[in-house]
Amino acid sequence: MTALRGYFHPKSASGGSSLIPSPPWLYSGDLLTVEYRTDPDRVRELLPAPLEPAEDDPGAVALIWADWQSCSTGGTELLDPVRSQYKEAFVVVRCSYQGRTYSRCVYIWVDKDFAIARGLHQGYPKKLGSIHQTRPHPYGPAPRIEAGARFGATLAAADRRLAQTVVTLREPAETNGFVNGHPMAHHRWLPSVEKGRGLALDELIESGAASFEGGRPWVGDAELELFDAPTEELSRLEIREPIAAYYRQVGVVWDGGRLLASGTSGAE
Amino acid sequence: MTALRGYFHPKSASGGSSLIPSPPWLYSGDLLTVEYRTDPDRVRELLPAPLEPAEDDPGAVALIWADWQSCSTGGTELLDPVRSQYKEAFVVVRCSYQGRTYSRCVYIWVDKDFAIARGLHQGYPKKLGSIHQTRPHPYGPAPRIEAGARFGATLAAADRRLAQTVVTLREPAETNGFVNGHPMAHHRWLPSVEKGRGLALDELIESGAASFEGGRPWVGDAELELFDAPTEELSRLEIREPIAAYYRQVGVVWDGGRLLASGTSGAE
Amino acid sequence: MTALRGYFHPKSASGGSSLIPSPPWLYSGDLLTVEYRTDPDRVRELLPAPLEPAEDDPGAVALIWADWQSCSTGGTELLDPVRSQYKEAFVVVRCSYQGRTYSRCVYIWVDKDFAIARGLHQGYPKKLGSIHQTRPHPYGPAPRIEAGARFGATLAAADRRLAQTVVTLREPAETNGFVNGHPMAHHRWLPSVEKGRGLALDELIESGAASFEGGRPWVGDAELELFDAPTEELSRLEIREPIAAYYRQVGVVWDGGRLLASGTSGAE
Amino acid sequence: MTALRGYFHPKSASGGSSLIPSPPWLYSGDLLTVEYRTDPDRVRELLPAPLEPAEDDPGAVALIWADWQSCSTGGTELLDPVRSQYKEAFVVVRCSYQGRTYSRCVYIWVDKDFAIARGLHQGYPKKLGSIHQTRPHPYGPAPRIEAGARFGATLAAADRRLAQTVVTLREPAETNGFVNGHPMAHHRWLPSVEKGRGLALDELIESGAASFEGGRPWVGDAELELFDAPTEELSRLEIREPIAAYYRQVGVVWDGGRLLASGTSGAE
Repeated sequence: MTALRGYFHPKSASGGSSLIPSPPWLYSGDLLTVEYRTDPDRVRELLPAPLEPAEDDPGAVALIWADWQSCSTGGTELLDPVRSQYKEAFVVVRCSYQGRTYSRCVYIWVDKDFAIARGLHQGYPKKLGSIHQTRPHPYGPAPRIEAGARFGATLAAADRRLAQTVVTLREPAETNGFVNGHPMAHHRWLPSVEKGRGLALDELIESGAASFEGGRPWVGDAELELFDAPTEELSRLEIREPIAAYYRQVGVVWDGGRLLASGTSGAE
Repeated sequence: MTALRGYFHPKSASGGSSLIPSPPWLYSGDLLTVEYRTDPDRVRELLPAPLEPAEDDPGAVALIWADWQSCSTGGTELLDPVRSQYKEAFVVVRCSYQGRTYSRCVYIWVDKDFAIARGLHQGYPKKLGSIHQTRPHPYGPAPRIEAGARFGATLAAADRRLAQTVVTLREPAETNGFVNGHPMAHHRWLPSVEKGRGLALDELIESGAASFEGGRPWVGDAELELFDAPTEELSRLEIREPIAAYYRQVGVVWDGGRLLASGTSGAE
Repeated sequence: MTALRGYFHPKSASGGSSLIPSPPWLYSGDLLTVEYRTDPDRVRELLPAPLEPAEDDPGAVALIWADWQSCSTGGTELLDPVRSQYKEAFVVVRCSYQGRTYSRCVYIWVDKDFAIARGLHQGYPKKLGSIHQTRPHPYGPAPRIEAGARFGATLAAADRRLAQTVVTLREPAETNGFVNGHPMAHHRWLPSVEKGRGLALDELIESGAASFEGGRPWVGDAELELFDAPTEELSRLEIREPIAAYYRQVGVVWDGGRLLASGTSGAE
Repeated sequence: MTALRGYFHPKSASGGSSLIPSPPWLYSGDLLTVEYRTDPDRVRELLPAPLEPAEDDPGAVALIWADWQSCSTGGTELLDPVRSQYKEAFVVVRCSYQGRTYSRCVYIWVDKDFAIARGLHQGYPKKLGSIHQTRPHPYGPAPRIEAGARFGATLAAADRRLAQTVVTLREPAETNGFVNGHPMAHHRWLPSVEKGRGLALDELIESGAASFEGGRPWVGDAELELFDAPTEELSRLEIREPIAAYYRQVGVVWDGGRLLASGTSGAE
């Protein structure tokens, strides 16, 4: 009898076709984070049971751009960079589960299929988008990482611009923000293939970095704009009050998560 | 307590952000099908338990290009065609389950995220690709649907060409081929987020069209080439003997499938 | 001494690398045309000397979407359709030169490099864009070409939507509109490579189809929206009064144009 | 009378639609250079009159990948990075004109329209391509710029891979190679719009950086592969002998060139 192999589809005799390799997954990347406060009700309405709003500052939102190079153990993908480089923009809020504070990604766009697949596994609700982010550079007109440096970032999907920001760095900082600083509490959902049968998969999982290194964060100020689109609700997280913006270069390893609960979300 | 809505992620209070709407899903499209025989062992090695090779002609393969416009009930997506148009190329073999013959898609590439999401639901092992297919046209140099007309089709992924064909139509036919003519027997797999725990979702499902209409198929001959790539195994389904090629315009409705078995695949 | 060959760059010993082959160029395509009136001053300001506004209806504008398959003699490109298929959206106004009425394309976006190169040759001021247009289909939810059928079309560039329309067909018509019905009067401009030396190429040329065939046009009504963008002025051609919308399938051959004047534009 | 403005098409009353702004153009970027020797006849056949092969080492070739951020004075484009970031891969050989050695780009692929437009101006024979290049990073699995670091780079066009390399750095170096180290001798060609009339523009121009800064180059070794494609002749510059590979981060300003000769190329 055939034993199919491969961490993800398509599975095959060798496993060599799998859209993604098995973890650990290693990442090098630049994070541009814009934190602001929205109406806490707009955050609450995105938190399914049994999650509850964070007790402290429940309307805090982080909109994060990331410019990644990622690979599996051995790093083969780095040498064929169409298979390692991708960009993403994602929205993080905080929530509470059994008295502990978690971060939670509520919207995310990426530009590669392997990133979509990893997101399915990790509970990130990924769509395809077009994401751009100024990169620091030691020569020429691009910014250095220094006071006064300005970084732009944009997000579009389905040929519509959804968000754009310009961040001006001010000074080195102790943190890279507080909204995306907790373990992630995500759902992995898939509807039953049979109509009217609800969800075939309904897991609440916890996920975070297996290891992490990073440079000194820089803090600054952001101009941020969100735009309406017929199939997106990002602009519903309206900007009430800016908090701060951050720039940081990081190295991350992801190596699996933990199942917190199953069948509890009450989601349709 | 919040009841999150949306057929797929990202779920929200309104459901308006879901990457795909709830079925039924309606499709208009052109199918270019190339059937050939490969080594039956190469098909067998892609069939996990409890599937078995088809009794008759077990090495038959169909490589199908499709140029689609799709929508939900109401057809909104058709009027914002970046949200309805997509192309795909996919490989179908046949198998047997409990004495019945099924078709099964073993590899598939699409060029839109909503198509990836529908594939996850239906058990199609989708990756992103770049797919092109000559379209018939009543004027100018593009082919009419008639004897001698030639249609080209190509598939690439990760900046490498994986397959290309040129099909020459010969005459109207009774069928559009036999390999993709059965209900689909697909797996829906997702690994556990916890390392070493195997699969969190391991379903064998049956899926097919809820309704179908189509024009007269045309049969012809194909030149077909498959190319190696480091992360693909399409070329392992080597071409031993051409069968025939087909062209057909169709309208299809998909409206859910049926769970056949759970936890039986033995896949890693 | 080497004689380099190739109709366009890059030239080589064989000519086989040329981005475009020598004319004639053959096209099969679907045209979706939306005609409206804007402030005639907004048209006038786009007409360099020696062009003058059209005497009759000088504020008439056509915004046209086209879904093309194109090739050189022999049709090789049609069988490798990534090299033949492209889409475009373009804006046409009318003008007068030496007492004759011409059409003139003032803005145009395409999605392939070979289309950019042909535009340079023909005086179309092409940029890259993302263009989508509903296609008619005989089966399923996509529209037939018939009364009440609706076709959507969209244009984006640099991750911003620039225009969108929904056209509802009403009845067969005698014409496909009047704005794009004349020979084209275009400029071919290239600045001198030396700073402050003005234009190295400043030609006014006339161009049109060497041959043409087409189906019966359909006339209907359009909802049209134009959007602002920092590097575009399409929305400056504001919609004052709708005229009509048209749908037509055509076959066209282009085989060279005619030089009308040189060095007369006074453009910077 | 209207005076149209804009450095490039489309020209308008304000000049705000121009695909590219007037020079100077400023660049920050990373260069990955692979130098090798091919058959000198393969270089000679790409040099039109009055250019002659370089006296010394006439078969030397540089295949260069570049990852750029570019802007005009003021740097606006850097903050909307879809308008500043692009990648390119290009092939440089050397030649001699009036006793002086020049570099000359014979093939080049880029991934943005503004880069195509600048290339038209500067005589680079640009096509669209898909270009990827490993980026150095201070954290995680991506390489630092140090001994033993490995950088991959790939080029594809029309859904076919054309070239790929893996470069391993060895040590800091005095130069970034010698093939691309001279002023560029390029042609700016455009056929007459009238058939059979030859070239409307046939300029030999000289071009180079108005200013330059850069980090210490690193030298290393490359594995390089070139692939055939029906519309490309890159692989005709076959690899006879590797020379070396280089990595360097640079800042460049381009601010116009100089006309060397007109109407002398004898090209078709």
